[in-house]
Formats: sequence, structure tokens, C-alpha cells
Amino acid sequence: MKLGPGIARTKLPQGFFVSGINSGVRKYRPDLGVITSDYPMTAAGVFTQNEAKAACVHWSKGLLPSNDIKVVITNSGQANAATGAEGVFNNKQMAKSCAEVFECDAQQVLTASTGMIGVQLSIDLITKAMPELRARLTDSAEPFANAILTTDLVPKTVSTAIKLSQGEVVLTGIAKGSGMIHPNMATMLGYLMSDVKLNIYEAQTYLKNAVDESFNMISVDGDTSTNDSAFLLCNGASGVELVTDEDKTIFSQTLIEVCQLLAKAIARDGEGATKLIEIKLTGAADKKLAKQAARGLTMSPLIKSAVHGEDSNWGRILARLGAEGVPAEDLSKMILKMQGEIIFENGAPAAFDRDKLRSLLRSDTVFVDIELPHPDKNIDVMAWGCDLSKKYVEINAEYST
Amino acid sequence: MKLGPGIARTKLPQGFFVSGINSGVRKYRPDLGVITSDYPMTAAGVFTQNEAKAACVHWSKGLLPSNDIKVVITNSGQANAATGAEGVFNNKQMAKSCAEVFECDAQQVLTASTGMIGVQLSIDLITKAMPELRARLTDSAEPFANAILTTDLVPKTVSTAIKLSQGEVVLTGIAKGSGMIHPNMATMLGYLMSDVKLNIYEAQTYLKNAVDESFNMISVDGDTSTNDSAFLLCNGASGVELVTDEDKTIFSQTLIEVCQLLAKAIARDGEGATKLIEIKLTGAADKKLAKQAARGLTMSPLIKSAVHGEDSNWGRILARLGAEGVPAEDLSKMILKMQGEIIFENGAPAAFDRDKLRSLLRSDTVFVDIELPHPDKNIDVMAWGCDLSKKYVEINAEYST
Repeated sequence: MKLGPGIARTKLPQGFFVSGINSGVRKYRPDLGVITSDYPMTAAGVFTQNEAKAACVHWSKGLLPSNDIKVVITNSGQANAATGAEGVFNNKQMAKSCAEVFECDAQQVLTASTGMIGVQLSIDLITKAMPELRARLTDSAEPFANAILTTDLVPKTVSTAIKLSQGEVVLTGIAKGSGMIHPNMATMLGYLMSDVKLNIYEAQTYLKNAVDESFNMISVDGDTSTNDSAFLLCNGASGVELVTDEDKTIFSQTLIEVCQLLAKAIARDGEGATKLIEIKLTGAADKKLAKQAARGLTMSPLIKSAVHGEDSNWGRILARLGAEGVPAEDLSKMILKMQGEIIFENGAPAAFDRDKLRSLLRSDTVFVDIELPHPDKNIDVMAWGCDLSKKYVEINAEYST
Repeated sequence: MKLGPGIARTKLPQGFFVSGINSGVRKYRPDLGVITSDYPMTAAGVFTQNEAKAACVHWSKGLLPSNDIKVVITNSGQANAATGAEGVFNNKQMAKSCAEVFECDAQQVLTASTGMIGVQLSIDLITKAMPELRARLTDSAEPFANAILTTDLVPKTVSTAIKLSQGEVVLTGIAKGSGMIHPNMATMLGYLMSDVKLNIYEAQTYLKNAVDESFNMISVDGDTSTNDSAFLLCNGASGVELVTDEDKTIFSQTLIEVCQLLAKAIARDGEGATKLIEIKLTGAADKKLAKQAARGLTMSPLIKSAVHGEDSNWGRILARLGAEGVPAEDLSKMILKMQGEIIFENGAPAAFDRDKLRSLLRSDTVFVDIELPHPDKNIDVMAWGCDLSKKYVEINAEYST
């Protein structure tokens, strides 16, 4: 399984169609897209934990889970967050005008927005663009994947076939990460589509589980957006259901893998990023602490800067693990590896070859392995981040005006 | 009250003497200092919460509070953290050799270290330097303030007289923040000295309270050091005790002010910083959440980058407050000001003058005021941070070798 080509065709599951166009909100780039299906979709959603939620997040959260979704519409350029009552009205308007053109009820339309916080949606432009959105429907993922980008450098798509006991289904994922033309844009959006037949309970459970192991384990800068949303959309077009335990395991695992692939692509494409950082933490005594510690490493500006400088700087890793609350006792028994080389064990620095490690760090992916002394508990977590470059500061210090 | 001149004389309370010399651990700069007193000192300490504590932190924590401290010794360049049993031995050795020269027991010597994590103390150089440390004792703060710096750009001292019912006492503070010559150095050290006569209970209580309102409310990059330590040292040389409630309030308030002045100086001198950010959050419903939210703003790379770019970017402030858990209801009633200008109120952006605000942001201090809608609860908190510049990345991406 690998990321889609981005410029060519990434297969959609049967019965799914998407489009992506320029509505005029942004100058040149596509800024409005839909996902729809010949068949009603069973849909689940997972949303930002931020108390300041965008109007679209409240709307979609209020409709899910559902077994009767017809369209997901998404605009980029304007986040419709911190926009008060007018924002709520505009979001409803977007769903309504979409429903008219796609011949369904507004309650069958999910909405998502990404872009500048605190500016009102250009709802007239969006409404006017609906017929074109319908006219341009296609069966490859790219037009939609491009329409939801802000300043991500590459569109992010992945598609895979899954063999189940009753037959084969297709799972396709599309995502965007954080990029900035105008600052304030930093939204994670993820769309998972399949022609498998799921009930709403299954859809919600599998999605929540997959998001926890993927999108929720990446960090570009530790700032949580007002608009983060991930959707699982299943139209049952294959007629294939999850009947055996093996089916459930295979589907659930593949969903996790697809989400992780997209999540890693988002981290690698973080603002100003030049390297993906992959943290693997094993042998922890407590899952919550393990996740917090692994994510903590991906959020440390000191570690991110060191990785940017292709420097090992393991002292910063140890200090951050301690700051996150990993017990001193565990740290003294920890084995810490970078790029597979042991650099700390038995409570003291290992005698590693600095020149060798430095050359290994000249890679576009940096692997940090932390082995804590409780392998019997079977707690393994992964997290992903990116390095911190001068480019990040440059992008985010630009005027929003 | 203002910061000491740095290059000249900052007054010590009566009976206090300090020195600072080059022991050879660092090439040219002073790297070893002591604080001592003619009279035994009542001493209290507050230390890093990091699970990975340096050897000196365990040592000093084990001795405090005490009414019989004679010397505080501090070295810079080597943090003596993550150094295993050898580090513990070397720290004990530092205390012992210091005790011999200053004619006391090792248990009367507090130790602190700042510098590179994971390298052993150059204990021979440090031991050899003890006689010179004693020979060079002086009654102004600067030699010690300089010896504890890593790459802080300026030494940080402050001194003030306090009028109490029984007479006048002097309170002098010295601190260092985070700077990097070798990466991995990021330690906050604070020393508060007074000739007031306190018991150990008073010393511990006043120090803890002052640290919570000052050093614990600053952030340069969100990474907690293995070595952070703050000490309050009182030698009683003035004979003045805190007898009335007013005495207690005055002393306690002055201690907070001195610590805040030093804390702000540390934030302003953060790595690569060009601006101090001061957050004032009032009208919150919950103190813990208020502190977390205010600190969260000082830790956001997006906000820090925007301040660096002299941009208001209030959407990032709102998003971070929401991410920290400030209820949506409170955010919708919040008044948000930057440099005194209202930029968000009644749940929507205010009609502020962008050009005026931009010119106000061209200042070396940026004030962010957040007024939440529960002024009746009387919860006001302050926090300080600094902007994020390309220089920060440059400093921290350098090789540690």
C-alpha cells in the first residue's frame, strides 16, 4: 500500500464520485469539492476536541452517525470558525444549496471547511458553484483531494483493495494537513470511503479506533485546529459485509494502515518540514502515558530543531520523556535508539559512533525507538511529527492581512 | 524596582558574599560560582517536576528545607543529568570539596548545575578551583550572576529594600534562563537572598508561592529541564522578623515581584527572542484552567511566530484557548485585546484598526489581555513567553558535538 500518485488517478470504491472546482473564494486554486455516492452512505465522524468549534463541525457532529448521508461538501480558504451566528447561517445555507442540486435533504449533507479563522464564508460564490460541482463528478480522487488543500505541497490519497470472506471491497482515503497561505489555516481533514456494507455502530467504532492510532498521533506544531474532521463513508455498493472475526480484523487493520499512511503524509508535509519523525515507544506500563510521551517528543521544538540539524541530541529526548512523566525508574532502564543505533542504555550514554549516526540522520525520515522495561504489558505506540525549520517561522510570521 | 545593571554592582543583603570564576570547564567564560553567608542560612528550594532529575537536584532536594545552609555552589557547562552513578558520586564530591574549603559539612552545601545533559562533571577542575572561589568572595551579585549563564545574553539580577515593622531588609535575586552554546542547555536557575529572619516553614511557603506566580508561568519552548531549581536563602543578618500580617504581605508580595521581574527577564532573553509576550487572563472560572490556558498561549509556535512577524492573528489565540479547554460559552463572551486594542468581542471579530495595531505591535513587548466573563470569581493570572524566530531554529539545529 502506498500513497496515490497525486497528479493521476486514485481509484474510488464503486458507486463513489467526487468533484473539485474553483468557486472564486480563492484566486486560482480549486477551493470547493464534494464526495457523493449512488447509494446512501453509512457515515461516522470524529472531530476536533477544541472548545472553539467551527460551524461546520457542530453541523456534521449533529448529523452523525447516520445511515443516510448523500453528500460531503468541503471548502478551503475560509474556516467558518469564530464567525458567530452569521457563520452558522452560512453553513446551513451551504448544506441547503448543495442538497437542492444533489436532490436530497440538507440533513443528508455533511459540511467541512478549512482556511482562515474569523472571516465569513463567501456563501454567494459557493451557492452559485453547486451546479458545476455536480456536472464535474468523476470517479478518481484527485479533483477533491486538490480542492481541500490550503498550502499543503502535495495532495494525499491512498486506495487499496481488501479481500474479505464474502468478496473484495475497496478502501480509499483522502486527507489534507496544515499549510498556510494566510496564517490561521491548520486543519486536518480526512475522508475514508469504502463500498463495504457497515452498520453505523461498526462505522463509528472502526473510525474512532483508526483515528486514535493515526491522525491523533501526529503533530506539526501542537496547535489544535477549530475544524479538524475525519469521516468514514461506506455505501455498501459491493454488497460485502464483515461476517467473520477475520473480516473484522482485516478491515479494521487496513483502515488503520490507510489512516496512518495519510497521517504520515500530513506530518511529512507540515509547514516548512524537511523530514518525517517516526516515534516508536514500546514496553510502557501505561497506554495513556505512552501516547502522551510519544506525542510529547513530536511536539518538542528542541527535538524538532535538532532533527532539522541532523543531530542526535538524545539528552533532549530523555528530558522530554521525563517531563511527560515517564518514571525515573523506567528511564534508567530505557534503551533509546535513533536510526536503529543504540545511543542510551543502562542509565547512561552508550558508546555510539557519532559520525555514523550523523550520516544516518541525513535521511528524509528519522526513526526514534524507545524501549521501556515492561514488554510484558504489550503496550506499543507510534507517533509522527516533522522537523522545525526556519521556513516554518517564515511561513507563520507573515502578515495575515 | 528594576533589573540590575548587569555590568556594575547589584547590592547583596548584609552578610552575603558571592564569587564566580573560570574553573576550566568552559574555555573562557566564568563557569563556577558560590553564594555564602557569614551567618547560617535558612533555605528553601523548589525544583523541576521532570522525572529525569539531575544529580544535584536530588542532592539539594534531599537537604531542604534547612536552617543551617552555608554555601550554594553552581557550575555551568555540564548539567550532570543522565549521568548515572558516576554523576551522583561527582555531585557529592563537589559538595565535599566545597565544604572543606568553606569549613563546613557537605550537608551544609547545596549544589546546582546547568549545561549539557549526559556528560560527566569535570570534577577535578571543579575541586581544584575551590580555594580561588573562596579567595574571590565579593559583596556584589555580578560575578555569580555571570558564572551561571550558559548563552543567556545578559546576566539577571535585581535588588530591593523592604521596609518592615521592625526595620529594613534587603532582597536580592539572581537568575539564569535558557540559552545554548551546546544544545541541551535549557535550565532555569533562581537564587533569592535576604537578610530577613525567616523560619524554614515561612521560607518554603513564600518561595513556593512566588515561584508559582513567576518562574512557573514562563515558557521559552515548552521543554522542561532536568535541572530547574529556585532557592530562597535567608541569613537573618538584619535581625528583622516578619511579625505583623502586613510584614508578611509586604515580604511575600515583594518576593513575587522580584521573581516576576527575573522571570520576565528570562523570557525576554529566550533563545532567539526579540520580544517579550505578556499574557494577562482575567475573569476565569477556574484557576488551574486559567493558568494552563495562559501558559498554552505562550507555548504556541503559531502565536509565537505571528508575534515575531508583528501580526495580530487573533484567530490563533482563540483557537489555542479553545484547545486548552476554555469553554465555548466563555469564548463567545470573551474580550480579547492586544496592545490595549479590542480585537474580538461578542463572539465575533471587532472592527479594529489594522494599521494602528500593526504599528503598536512593533514594540519589544506584546501585551495580550483576555477578559473572560466571570470577574466575580477574582481569578487573574499572568504568563510570559517570547516570540519564535529563525534564530531559535538556528541555535538549536547546531550540532551538539
